[in-house]
Amino acid sequence: MNEEIRQASELFESMEPARAISRKAYQQLLTDLRADLLQAQIELADTRQSVIITIAGVDGAGKGEIIQLLNEWLDPRGLETHSFWNQESEVAHRPYQWRFWQAIPRRGRMHIWFGGMYADVIAEGVEHRHPQAWIADRSQEILAFEDMLQADGTSHLKLWLHLNKGTQRRRLKDLYENPKEHWRAMRDDWKYHNLYEAFSENAAEVISLTHVQKSPWRVVDASDKSWRNIEVGRILHEHMLQAIRTHKAKEKKPKQKSWSRQCQKNWLDEVDLRQRLTNQVYHDELIQHQARCHRLFWEAYERKIPTVLVFEGWDAAGKGSAIKRVTAAIDARLYRIVSVAAPTEEEHQFHYLWRFWKPLPPSGRITIFDRSWYGRVLVERIEGFAQSNEWQRAYQEINTFEDQLVQHGCVLCKFWIHISKEKQLERFQKRLEIPYKRHKITEEDWRNRKQWPAYQEAINDMIDLTHTDQAPWTLIAGNNKKFARIQILKTVCASLEKALSGGANHG
Amino acid sequence: MNEEIRQASELFESMEPARAISRKAYQQLLTDLRADLLQAQIELADTRQSVIITIAGVDGAGKGEIIQLLNEWLDPRGLETHSFWNQESEVAHRPYQWRFWQAIPRRGRMHIWFGGMYADVIAEGVEHRHPQAWIADRSQEILAFEDMLQADGTSHLKLWLHLNKGTQRRRLKDLYENPKEHWRAMRDDWKYHNLYEAFSENAAEVISLTHVQKSPWRVVDASDKSWRNIEVGRILHEHMLQAIRTHKAKEKKPKQKSWSRQCQKNWLDEVDLRQRLTNQVYHDELIQHQARCHRLFWEAYERKIPTVLVFEGWDAAGKGSAIKRVTAAIDARLYRIVSVAAPTEEEHQFHYLWRFWKPLPPSGRITIFDRSWYGRVLVERIEGFAQSNEWQRAYQEINTFEDQLVQHGCVLCKFWIHISKEKQLERFQKRLEIPYKRHKITEEDWRNRKQWPAYQEAINDMIDLTHTDQAPWTLIAGNNKKFARIQILKTVCASLEKALSGGANHG
Repeated sequence: MNEEIRQASELFESMEPARAISRKAYQQLLTDLRADLLQAQIELADTRQSVIITIAGVDGAGKGEIIQLLNEWLDPRGLETHSFWNQESEVAHRPYQWRFWQAIPRRGRMHIWFGGMYADVIAEGVEHRHPQAWIADRSQEILAFEDMLQADGTSHLKLWLHLNKGTQRRRLKDLYENPKEHWRAMRDDWKYHNLYEAFSENAAEVISLTHVQKSPWRVVDASDKSWRNIEVGRILHEHMLQAIRTHKAKEKKPKQKSWSRQCQKNWLDEVDLRQRLTNQVYHDELIQHQARCHRLFWEAYERKIPTVLVFEGWDAAGKGSAIKRVTAAIDARLYRIVSVAAPTEEEHQFHYLWRFWKPLPPSGRITIFDRSWYGRVLVERIEGFAQSNEWQRAYQEINTFEDQLVQHGCVLCKFWIHISKEKQLERFQKRLEIPYKRHKITEEDWRNRKQWPAYQEAINDMIDLTHTDQAPWTLIAGNNKKFARIQILKTVCASLEKALSGGANHG
Repeated sequence: MNEEIRQASELFESMEPARAISRKAYQQLLTDLRADLLQAQIELADTRQSVIITIAGVDGAGKGEIIQLLNEWLDPRGLETHSFWNQESEVAHRPYQWRFWQAIPRRGRMHIWFGGMYADVIAEGVEHRHPQAWIADRSQEILAFEDMLQADGTSHLKLWLHLNKGTQRRRLKDLYENPKEHWRAMRDDWKYHNLYEAFSENAAEVISLTHVQKSPWRVVDASDKSWRNIEVGRILHEHMLQAIRTHKAKEKKPKQKSWSRQCQKNWLDEVDLRQRLTNQVYHDELIQHQARCHRLFWEAYERKIPTVLVFEGWDAAGKGSAIKRVTAAIDARLYRIVSVAAPTEEEHQFHYLWRFWKPLPPSGRITIFDRSWYGRVLVERIEGFAQSNEWQRAYQEINTFEDQLVQHGCVLCKFWIHISKEKQLERFQKRLEIPYKRHKITEEDWRNRKQWPAYQEAINDMIDLTHTDQAPWTLIAGNNKKFARIQILKTVCASLEKALSGGANHG
């Protein structure tokens, strides 16, 4: 027995054993508990905290019953139940985490996750006899996800309903022998019972790897139903009160984190802005690379490889016109452009990455982000829309997010289009002269321009901290638009070619 | 040649033929047009109107190019492009219209639909040689959809880019012979060219059937690109101005529609509220029907048949506890409960049915609505949240919506749980005595109670106007909760049995 399993077994054994509760005592406990839960739910609704309740555990321990009860006890207007079972067609080749991002609660709400992120990992581990390293990787992914949400105010209550093998067998026997209950029994119940050891061992490993101080597992002895119900309610109530306290503490003392980072390298200064293309070369290369792009995107479609293109750059750097040169080479049925503006009221109700998960491409499709999640560490940092601790942790969050995309087989290109301050002024002035371009220059552009040095620093930090092996930045010299467009097309083609030469089909 | 095709051919022939435009004139026209379009877009953004631009037409006419151009001309922050091509995995057995409801613009915005609802109908008509009746049915469905959105402020600009067969051939030849362009050619171009007649005939039929005064087709000669671009821009601009005018007219003179309907039948009075069950009978039947339900829902899952259950009723009628008796019989992975409250700010940005389309069940799953779209003709009617013309047209809209669900193969049960006014008072008072039920009684409940006669009238109208063959109401005598629960379980089981005996698998 390895170390993790030993630890987890201790967790199981250390759980408080069920004690009998008289029917009368149960009714009284329940009455008080329900009033408490409702009161806490009302208070929670007014906070910026939300709760995800994962219900996991041994078969026969009553996960479904507990979910029914919670739905009965709590006000359904603040509660949703999500199950992630057999929804392959729904998630359509998005990264594994996509389905969970679609199911996170808005601020003040609670969601119940049946099995949550754990059900699959435990079941698949048993079924496919995955090596320990696989389980360790999945567990790390789950923790990264929980961490990210927790920092944003979504806490996780992870409940494990436990039965030992003997009790499970008795429970199953009772189920089959009780004419009032036997219809609840499932065809596969006994099969799983026979796998009890393998299942428990896997579960123990996953639990032990994800039993961390910030987000510990709570193990409940499910051998007695009354005890189980009261325990779950009690633990949930305690968890809700904690979430409410967290909110109050945050309100009282917003975290200000200082940032004394000194970027070692001035990335922007290394871009040679003198690079340019003549008209003739531009037109020849444009056709050549658009044709190549066109072919490659169809090939990626057939091989089910999705693509994400991220365009960032100074105002008037030429993002829009560069995007047009790319989309001109893609069949209009394959791509989608997402123009990112300030988040809406609705979007503010979730983690800031939420709104970027939703439009991720299904298999073989392309999503083009005209500005992106990097707003968090650019405009939101500079204008103070994000608190200092929020944007500071965003670098790591973004790296995790992009890593998930790439792990999933997505082609990801990130462009920063750089121009000089003089070139920006020249373009602003030119735009003012063209009637249909005038609207593109707003007060905000002039205000941003005044912040040039602050942006310079933020951009350098951004590149320094998010230029990873899996998701490198491509810095584009944008003073000459023609040069920039060809560079972008070339980079996109090269990335696609690399992914396509990777061999196996995807998805 | 039948009548429809003759009419449509006339439409094609009546289109203004392309005239050559000099390069210089084109530039000037374009400059003015782009400024006009942007200005109109800014004005539109402040209205409650939105626009869906369907781009359809003959292959080679440049649908993709036009979409590129519109994306270039308009501010991308108010524009989205949707294509509905090959997204089977996305729509996962929802009714055909589901994908289109997910793609409607919010108020003040514009969406481009590549091919829109027409592409499939025309292409499938050719491929499967569907009979005329099939095309006529599909066309009626499209018109119903357009009508419904139009009444709510979303207008449709339906553009047909036309080429005759000779021009299509020349366009294709040019494409293949021009080294700068031939990469744009698609493998299937010539195949489709050879089907030109069949395609045109089908298109002509669909167009003629959906060319109505409220939402006419606009046919553009695409044989000259400059002409085509300017024409499309001009027509779009005109359409946007019309939408802005419509908004202003509505603002000035909100439509008040009188309602002098006299319901022939007092539906509620026909419910025998004395019906009741003894404890013993209740418990026996509960087990029996829950077991039956459990088995049937699994069978429906396997047969991919989705289910929608709608629960409506007086306050304190026992909706919640009845739902619990149903869900106790369904595996928690199969169902989802949607608790309907007042629409959010976000939801107000769309047609009121929008928020009910989204959670419709994929194949084999169950969605339970705790209150539903009927709020439109109950609380919104009585409290004046919907204008009189809005709730008055809702009856028909709801019938259309439910018909689409049923046509799709969905099992649909609608319950109105009826109780007497005295019984309501008794339950209100009882709730106040139980700590965890106290929150269920709010000011609103007492206010609603005062409106009992107004609700009585609205409920009778509702049942009278939406009790259809495909989607009948089941009125439940709710004074005795036990009786009500069993009736509901029996009805659900019977509906499932009927659907399952229907034979063929679904989806």
